[in-house]
Amino acid sequence: MDDRKTIKDFETVALDEERDAVVIIDQTLLPGRTELISLKTAQEIWDAIYLLKVRGAPAIGVTAALGIYLLTNRIQEEDFERFYQKFREYKEYLDSSRPTAVNLSWALRRMEKICLQAGRAEKKSVEEVKEILRREALLIREEDVEVCRKIGEYGLTLVKPGDGILTHCNAGQLAAVKYGTATAPIYLGQERGYGFHVFADETRPLLQGARLTSYELFSSGVDVTLICDNMSASVMSKGLVQTVFVGCDRVAANGDTANKIGTSLVAIAANYYKIPVYVCAPTSTIDMETATGEDIHIEQRPGEEVTKMWYQEPMAPEGVKVHNPAFDVTDHRLIAGIVTEYGIARAPYTESLRAVMEKKRKNS
Amino acid sequence: MDDRKTIKDFETVALDEERDAVVIIDQTLLPGRTELISLKTAQEIWDAIYLLKVRGAPAIGVTAALGIYLLTNRIQEEDFERFYQKFREYKEYLDSSRPTAVNLSWALRRMEKICLQAGRAEKKSVEEVKEILRREALLIREEDVEVCRKIGEYGLTLVKPGDGILTHCNAGQLAAVKYGTATAPIYLGQERGYGFHVFADETRPLLQGARLTSYELFSSGVDVTLICDNMSASVMSKGLVQTVFVGCDRVAANGDTANKIGTSLVAIAANYYKIPVYVCAPTSTIDMETATGEDIHIEQRPGEEVTKMWYQEPMAPEGVKVHNPAFDVTDHRLIAGIVTEYGIARAPYTESLRAVMEKKRKNS
Repeated sequence: MDDRKTIKDFETVALDEERDAVVIIDQTLLPGRTELISLKTAQEIWDAIYLLKVRGAPAIGVTAALGIYLLTNRIQEEDFERFYQKFREYKEYLDSSRPTAVNLSWALRRMEKICLQAGRAEKKSVEEVKEILRREALLIREEDVEVCRKIGEYGLTLVKPGDGILTHCNAGQLAAVKYGTATAPIYLGQERGYGFHVFADETRPLLQGARLTSYELFSSGVDVTLICDNMSASVMSKGLVQTVFVGCDRVAANGDTANKIGTSLVAIAANYYKIPVYVCAPTSTIDMETATGEDIHIEQRPGEEVTKMWYQEPMAPEGVKVHNPAFDVTDHRLIAGIVTEYGIARAPYTESLRAVMEKKRKNS
Repeated sequence: MDDRKTIKDFETVALDEERDAVVIIDQTLLPGRTELISLKTAQEIWDAIYLLKVRGAPAIGVTAALGIYLLTNRIQEEDFERFYQKFREYKEYLDSSRPTAVNLSWALRRMEKICLQAGRAEKKSVEEVKEILRREALLIREEDVEVCRKIGEYGLTLVKPGDGILTHCNAGQLAAVKYGTATAPIYLGQERGYGFHVFADETRPLLQGARLTSYELFSSGVDVTLICDNMSASVMSKGLVQTVFVGCDRVAANGDTANKIGTSLVAIAANYYKIPVYVCAPTSTIDMETATGEDIHIEQRPGEEVTKMWYQEPMAPEGVKVHNPAFDVTDHRLIAGIVTEYGIARAPYTESLRAVMEKKRKNS
């Protein structure tokens, strides 16, 4: 790293008002090169999301919120309805960049709602609406940092200085704005001199653990060791791991957790070695409408990700069958706690998660 | 595969007396190309072993045995001691191709012993000694096929037609002459229409599961599905696996087993899902002098195998620490049985393995 810029110096997504741009780290260049790029046009923002230059649900949502503010702030209209019509066009355009990304739609809908509230219901001037959109976009960004920071604070109560921590995939700063989720206790601990020893699973086939997690922790000065996915039991057996922190894609009402493929295997091994497994879960990922993990649909991805992607030549015979599920479900009985921004839920999760969601409802 | 030759048509190592050559499948070209190569000179045999064109302990031993017969059969000497001097030179040369390969030394020592027995002790003519060396080399090869076949027969008693079988790394035909060890029950079952569904772990970082196991099973017509190492729990959780067969590098006297990194993780997951794990172990890998797995030294390999090898560009930041152990130890309590050519050892292994070794001693 040496002379080069590293992620330590930046956040994943930011608004640069001087340059009139959304600034992101181009994640398609990682881990080889750390490059900030300025997104100025609608096309550039759309491409950045579509081409995965920015990825991770929270980071995408924040990019879209900052992006739609940036674009609509330039609209030269004094009439709100004409302003709103152009707002809608931008919104629909950005929304089409990654249709399955829930946070993308969520952030854009939230921006639209406040836009209509201010301009149509409260009859504010377009200038005032623009300022309200600016504040809302920055608030969405700030809320994301806050949620991650709180998860980090709660997570930090679960570990001791010098502990070994294992994580899987990338639920890191690169998937959010700052701190990340599973990495939040690690970064807060790093700020406070905890001296953790982190093991990052490389996370086949997309290698987010190697390309992203080991990159962001290493360039932030964390003592991180990269391992292949099949080595977790080996490092656990040697007493090198005291805690497992993982992120999640969705938590069901009973605590069953869908996360990147391999998470359940890590959890089974950790339980065998009596190491606690904590799922770091913003409440936005807790889905009380999903009763158990069995109700979560697991996406199958192309076999080429396993046999050809990244490689100089195919690593399996042409035509062989490949099973490539994107996620697996970790049974709630394997999970020692679910760390949210409203505290740590413990078994029985059906009750504790309901209490967390109630606390959230009261706070908002 | 279609028009191309596949491993189904060949054995891994054979003697071609017509062409005066040892014929092997060049494993460095797999899984892309199936090419038989004829090794005729000492240099060609040395290179084939050194460059891993032939690999797997039994296959290396057989190649060396056939190789030293081939080379010494061409010696034009009638005096045994002068013949033996040249035999020694070839032996030492071949032995230097892979100093850590136990089977290489073992096979060459066995050939030397019978050479001395026949020529020096029994005063046989050089022509007779050559014929004795020929028979011994072919016997070493035949014994390897027999050991694997017997392991396959015993292994086959542990499964039912239609079963799902998971295996890790390559303890396959490509590591031996025919059948392999962990794959032996699969091939025998295939010959008898058992219709197994096999899952092959890709086995990072050297990918022997993807490059070799999925190749040899696929090209032999076995229904094989390639998975990443982090997917074993996922397929097990769906009821797709009834049995795990793995090979081994060394079995300790108490049944603890060292095998390719990741084996213990598979075993932990299988035990969690109540799936039996069987270690397929020729008695040559059972080491009664090693009390437990804790006494087995685990080799650490270069981090570049994880971060750079195979890839178009590095998959982790330059300078990040990598942990890359070649093997791990599976606790004997996770193993349902150890399948040898003398039957299946069950817990308590300290007794059952001693009985197996006793049976071997009486038979030899």
